[in-house]
Formats: sequence, C-alpha cells, structure tokens
Amino acid sequence: PQGTRDQRPAHMALREHLFAAVVACFKRHGAAAIDTPALELRETLMGKYGESGKLIYELQEQGGELLALRYDLTVPFARYLAMNKITTMKRYHIAKVYRRDSPATSRGRYREFYQCDFDIAGHFDPMIPDAECLKIVHEILSELKLGDFLIKVNDRRVLHGVFAICGVPDSKFISTCSSVDKLDKMPWEDVRSEMVAEKGLSPEAADHIGEYVRLHGGLELIEQLLQDPKLSQNKLAKEGLGDMKLLFEYLTLFGITGKVRRCWGQEEPQAPQLRMLTGFCVPQICFDLSLARGLDYYTGVIFEAVLVQQENDHMEEPVGSVAGGGRYDGLVGMFDPKGRKVPCVGVSIGIERIFSIVERRVKASGEKVRVTETQVLVATPHKHLLAARLKLISELWDAGIKAEMLYKKDPKLLKQLQYCEDTGIPLVAIIGEQELTDGVVKLRVVTTREEVRITFYTRIQKCFHNLGMV
Amino acid sequence: PQGTRDQRPAHMALREHLFAAVVACFKRHGAAAIDTPALELRETLMGKYGESGKLIYELQEQGGELLALRYDLTVPFARYLAMNKITTMKRYHIAKVYRRDSPATSRGRYREFYQCDFDIAGHFDPMIPDAECLKIVHEILSELKLGDFLIKVNDRRVLHGVFAICGVPDSKFISTCSSVDKLDKMPWEDVRSEMVAEKGLSPEAADHIGEYVRLHGGLELIEQLLQDPKLSQNKLAKEGLGDMKLLFEYLTLFGITGKVRRCWGQEEPQAPQLRMLTGFCVPQICFDLSLARGLDYYTGVIFEAVLVQQENDHMEEPVGSVAGGGRYDGLVGMFDPKGRKVPCVGVSIGIERIFSIVERRVKASGEKVRVTETQVLVATPHKHLLAARLKLISELWDAGIKAEMLYKKDPKLLKQLQYCEDTGIPLVAIIGEQELTDGVVKLRVVTTREEVRITFYTRIQKCFHNLGMV
Repeated sequence: PQGTRDQRPAHMALREHLFAAVVACFKRHGAAAIDTPALELRETLMGKYGESGKLIYELQEQGGELLALRYDLTVPFARYLAMNKITTMKRYHIAKVYRRDSPATSRGRYREFYQCDFDIAGHFDPMIPDAECLKIVHEILSELKLGDFLIKVNDRRVLHGVFAICGVPDSKFISTCSSVDKLDKMPWEDVRSEMVAEKGLSPEAADHIGEYVRLHGGLELIEQLLQDPKLSQNKLAKEGLGDMKLLFEYLTLFGITGKVRRCWGQEEPQAPQLRMLTGFCVPQICFDLSLARGLDYYTGVIFEAVLVQQENDHMEEPVGSVAGGGRYDGLVGMFDPKGRKVPCVGVSIGIERIFSIVERRVKASGEKVRVTETQVLVATPHKHLLAARLKLISELWDAGIKAEMLYKKDPKLLKQLQYCEDTGIPLVAIIGEQELTDGVVKLRVVTTREEVRITFYTRIQKCFHNLGMV
Repeated sequence: PQGTRDQRPAHMALREHLFAAVVACFKRHGAAAIDTPALELRETLMGKYGESGKLIYELQEQGGELLALRYDLTVPFARYLAMNKITTMKRYHIAKVYRRDSPATSRGRYREFYQCDFDIAGHFDPMIPDAECLKIVHEILSELKLGDFLIKVNDRRVLHGVFAICGVPDSKFISTCSSVDKLDKMPWEDVRSEMVAEKGLSPEAADHIGEYVRLHGGLELIEQLLQDPKLSQNKLAKEGLGDMKLLFEYLTLFGITGKVRRCWGQEEPQAPQLRMLTGFCVPQICFDLSLARGLDYYTGVIFEAVLVQQENDHMEEPVGSVAGGGRYDGLVGMFDPKGRKVPCVGVSIGIERIFSIVERRVKASGEKVRVTETQVLVATPHKHLLAARLKLISELWDAGIKAEMLYKKDPKLLKQLQYCEDTGIPLVAIIGEQELTDGVVKLRVVTTREEVRITFYTRIQKCFHNLGMV
C-alpha cells in the first residue's frame, strides 16, 4: 500500500539498534511499558487532532463497532488512564500509528510509522516531570550521535497571553497558532500576510504578534518578558513565564543548557552557501516564542527538537523535527465520565526521521550491516556426512550457540565457505571422515583461515566460551 | 474494541520475557528479522485463507487503494519474497495480526494478537529445513517450561493419497480435511456422521478413511504404511511417506524423538478423573494421520504442538495448539507474475496461548512482577534539597544508572521509602544537608536498611559497578 514499506533485514538490524537505545533511556528513567490495540473505537479518536482528524484510517463497517486505526499513542494513553482510573503513571510505548497523510518517504514520512513515546501522568510539583522529558530528548539525541541539535521550548499559556494582548480573540487562538508554527518554514512577511488575509487579524495585531514571536533566547529573555508591562499583566502569560523560568533552572541543574555551534532557524542567512559559512553559537535549549505545535490538546509547556545542519551532511532537504512533546492536562478528563483531570506531560521521539538519517549515513559509509548473528557454520568437506552435521549442529543449538548449516545433503566445501563470507559468519566447524574417526571437530576462523582441532564437543563449548560467544 | 485489550505493565514485562526467549531461538537458527505493514492490499489477502477469509478486517474506502489488515504473517512473507524476487531466505517476524473471530479471551484468543513466525524459503534437499522447524518448536516449548508437550506431524500428500484410495473426489479434499481436523475435539462417530451427512461421502468411504486417520505412531507406522498394498500404489502418498521417513530420521539425529509420560489425544479415557490416573507413554513427536490443518496453502509436511494436561494444572479448558506450521510450496508463486515457485516451510508459535498459560501460573503463584528496572531512588530527608536531587539524579542517568525521584519539591522520606517498597526499587541514594557538607551520598539497601556513605559521586559509579548494576 502507498506510504507503507517492508522492512528488510538490513533495516531491521539498524532499527533494533535505534529502538534499543531509546528503550534503554526510557527504562533508565523508570518507565514501565504498556501496549494498546492498534484499533480504537472511532469515537475515542474523533475531535482530538483538530484539522488532521481527517487523516484517520477508518475501518469498514462489517457488523459490530465502528473502528479506526490509532493516529498517535497519546490519545490511547489518555483513554487507558481514564478507563483504568489510573492517576499516576510513568510509561513508555513503542508502536505503529497510522495517518492517511501524503507520504514523503525520502524524508522518512510514511502512512504507517513507529512512535516512541514517554509520558508522565500525575499531580506533581510544577516543571519537574517536564524537565525530565527534555532531559530524555537530550540524552537520546546525544546518544544516537546525530550531530548538533537544538530544542525549542515554549508554553501555550505564553502564546495565549501574547495573542490576547495583541487583540486576537480566543476563538482565533488555534488558527493563529497554526500560522505562527510556520515560521520555521516561511519568512515572517508570508506568515504575516496569511494572518491578515486568511485568518482575519488586523495588520496592527499581526505586527504586534510579530514583535513577540520572533523572540528567542534563554533565562534572560524570560526575565525580560516577565518585566514586559503588558504581558506581565496577563494571568496566563505570567503563569507560563513563571514555569518557563523554573524549567530553565531545572534544565541548568541537569546540565543541558549549553551552547551549540550553529543554529538552523529563521534568522540565519537563507542561502545554503552562506548558511554553511556562518558560525554563530546558539543555546542548545532555547525559549522560542514562534513554537506553537499543531495539536489541540497541549495546555502548557511545548517543545520540539531539530537537527542542526552540518557542512558534510548532504541532505537534500532538512529532516524537520526529530522529537516533540508537551503538557496536556485536559485530555484524560475527556475520557472520564466525571471529567476528572489527570495532568500529563510527554515526549515522542521521531524515530522514523532519525532512522532515515542514520540509514542514509550507513549507506554513504558503504559499511556492510550483518543481518544475522550466526556464530558458526557447520560444514563437511565431502559427501555422505549429513548425519554428522545434523548431530553436531543440534548439540551446538542445545548449548546456546548460534549455528547454521546449508540445507543440502552434500554441499561443496567452497560453497559453504562462500556462505560464511557472504553473511559474515566468523567461524566454520568442519567435520570430515578423519575428524569423525578421531572424535574431533576442526574449527576455522573464516578471515584468517587459522584452524584448531578440538575434541568433540564438550571441548567445543569451552572453546566458544573462551571466545566470549556463549 | 471487542476482542482487543490493553497490555498493562505487568503483562508487558511477562510478554517481553517470552518474546526474548522466542527471538533468541530464532536468532540461534540464523534467521534475519523483517517487518511488513499491518495494512495489505485486499487483493493480496483474498483467496488465501479458505472459509476463514470472511474474518479479514477491511478498511473503509476513503479514496485510494482498497486495504485490509493482515490475517497472518505467512501471506505477507510470500508477497514480500515475490515482490523482491527473493528465492532464498530464512527470516523471523514477530507482529500483530487481525481476525474478526469470536473472541475467547480466557483461552488467549483475541481479534488482535501477536504471531511469532520463523520460515525457510528456498530450493533445498528434502526435509532438512522441515526438520529444523520442528527442532525450533521443541527448543522453544522446552525452554519456556510449559510442561510436557506433544508434536503431531502429518503430510498433506499422505492425506491426499488416503482420501483418494478411499474414493473421495479431489473436489472434496479440503472439506474432508476440515472434518478430519476435528478428531482432536470430537469422537470418531461424530466426525463420521459429519462426513456422510454434511460432506456427502459414502458410509463406506468414511469408514475406510476412519481406519487410516485414527492411526498414529512413529517410524514403524510409516514403514507399515509404505507396505500398505493400496496406499503404496498412490504416487502422492508414497512421496509423502518417503519424506516422513526421512523427517523422522533427521529428528532422531536431533535427539527429539523421545517419549513423554502422558498424551492428550482421542484414545485416552474421556473422563478427566480417569485421564489423570492413566499414565501411558507416547512419543513426543508423533506421526498422526488425523492432523489436517485448516489453511489452504499447505502442500507437504504439516505439524501442530499441543500441551499435555497435567494433574496440578487447573485449566478450565485445554488451551489447544501452542505452535503449528507446515510446508507451502505454492504460495509465493501466486504473487509472482510469472508464477515462479519458491518452496517454503515455516512455524508459527502460538505466543498468545502460551502467554495466557504463563500469566495464569504467575497469578496462581502470587509472585509480584516488577514492571520497571529502576535501580535506585534519589531521596532527600528534609526540605529545600530539590536542586541537590536534580543534580545527583542527572549524574546517575548520565552514568547509565536507572534512577528515579519523586516529582515533589519536598517529599517526606517515608513516602520516598514507601515508593521503593511499592515498586521494588532495591536502593535509595539519600542526600541531606550533612551529606552535602561532607560531599557524600548515603546509599541504603531498602530491604535490610544497611547503609554506606560514599564519596560524591565518582565513587557512586564504582559502587554500582561492584554491585553489578552498570
């Protein structure tokens, strides 16, 4: 089907490596795993994703319930918490989600793709779980060695306040957000035109918004806005800025508010040639008022991580955000019959985009990825020795050794050695008539052709043990 | 949705343990992993599953292709081989499949469930890959310690031959198979009536079939049937019996043709009380002519593993088969434009049934399953120490240690210790004013309350290292 793909063995090996790093981080932060069905009732998903709701895959009515494929892992998590009356939980969830989007497969955008989510639910003191989510993004992106990255942070309440003091009515909050969110792809002039022409804001309001949303910085910017005569009068903005300040203090304690060499944002030169030459420093985690995020359900902190383009990275187009998330304190209440709220904050790692970057790099490096873990090939040098091979390989399997043999009665030795070279198997265990008579096995290192004769097969195990293979 | 369920953390922990054992076995046998989309084109799935095809989940037509959810992993594998013109491959695939079946959740039967498949594709010498599939079933069921099990083996060609010499026309082959397949749930008399009344066989044909399909045994039965004056004249049956003989020889070399104490089959006493008292021995792998299997696509060897009921196992109902598979030499050709065949044999582990058994056992044992792997809780004994906690936990995370803290500014020490007991965290790292002044951390073992003061925090890492926790 369009926008989907098979994962061949080389993909899977790489993918397992990436998942392992992500899971290790989630477990390091004490998260438990859950899984939910890929199928949800349609009513569970409806009205949670704003305009994107039209991209939900619906199932045919075949008698029984009206079903749809999950669109993300956040809504099912909220449904899970409400259904089971859970008020405190730290969980991760790695699973496929489905979107009837226009696929852009070269950039890692598919209709079926994995999400890797970590969320903290519960009534806690402000910004402690939020800071942990950002720490997790920082740990994972650092560990995967994707190059420099930048994490943009904002707060929906600050945006609310900014729009309010600029004279935007509440009813236009989400649509104004979606314009602002385009600032990372469009120059300010175009965003301004959209606000005025399509969203119906006054030119004065748009200009006023422009003064705010092009701001970004660190603690000093937060302090400055807290002093802003108009903004500091707005209750929501003041709350949001107070929490931003706390968040940046915690992030400093986590030691992740350092600087990176180069930023990929709207204030850099537009021409790629110039961009490559400019070398200014920006903070790695940045309070950025242009960050708005598309989804309806965010209520507080929001964030997004992007990779910083590097000279030697020949990407045709930027990969966009590689992680994102935020606080959604109202979503669980939507599934509770009594509307009881469970505050939540979470992060989603854009593993597909990361995968497409890593895959491109592996391809460029020409490195050969082994797709199996086989340690030894059981081989025979001449005919009529199938029984000996079957007996030996069975012993190896029972001893926990990863072993293969060719599925031929009488394969040529050359073919057997060739198979090792093709698949990267490091050792061959050879048994011929002579070895059978002597009760030994000849063990050969494929690359060096070095050989040892070892006593059949209590010794073979010991040998493997010494090689660190068991 | 009906027939689906959320996997809570305790389930996930158990599930990960089972998957790990299965994957380890598949990798030991040199298989590479692949993944295919959960969505397939409807035309890919249609006409592959016989009558069960009506249980396929179809997606709503929303513009674009007609899609359906995959029903198993075998058909997508065949489609994958044909699409990519692959003629040799050993792969495993662990993923969810979807069936609009009537759910029987207590027996582990769901509408969304995992399959764990291992398949070998390619033109090889007879029965070598087939024997490996049976070895894999034997290894996995032994390793998971599910108790005694029995593997029934048959060959579709032998059944074809038997039905032919009994006068069943080719057109009634599949429907006669489906009657025969009920012999493990119904007495022979009922199966016979069904054949005559519903399937339209003559009473003589049915009786004749009955003489054959109630036979089961080992090599000696195969030899006996090879001498059978009528059966030995049938080309297909002779081929099938020849291969069965070879298969059992290979299985003997693999050392898995031993006996188990008790068999759960149609020749045992029907009353459970009697069944518990009878103690006769049966071969663990058994040539059983009543095994027919439902799916259309099998062309040769077929097999199924069942658990042998034990006295101390208080199951309300038998769990049915826990693994099954067989040879399907024609399926890949159905997806190739030129009809080129790729012979395949494979096994599917019934992980959901196994999971429901293991889960019931864990529940009965009252054992508490830890759902997280957190090694240490970072705690403070009094107020105003959040910064110290944040700094310490960040160091621990960066050192690869699995650490948690409570998301409160000033949690009570008792609450923090309680959290460890509730979640099974073995250690607490305590920092108070005194410890901060002395530059140390107090490390306490939760269960014994034993304490050590260790120097802040190069030493903490060493300490964890010695405890084998890093």
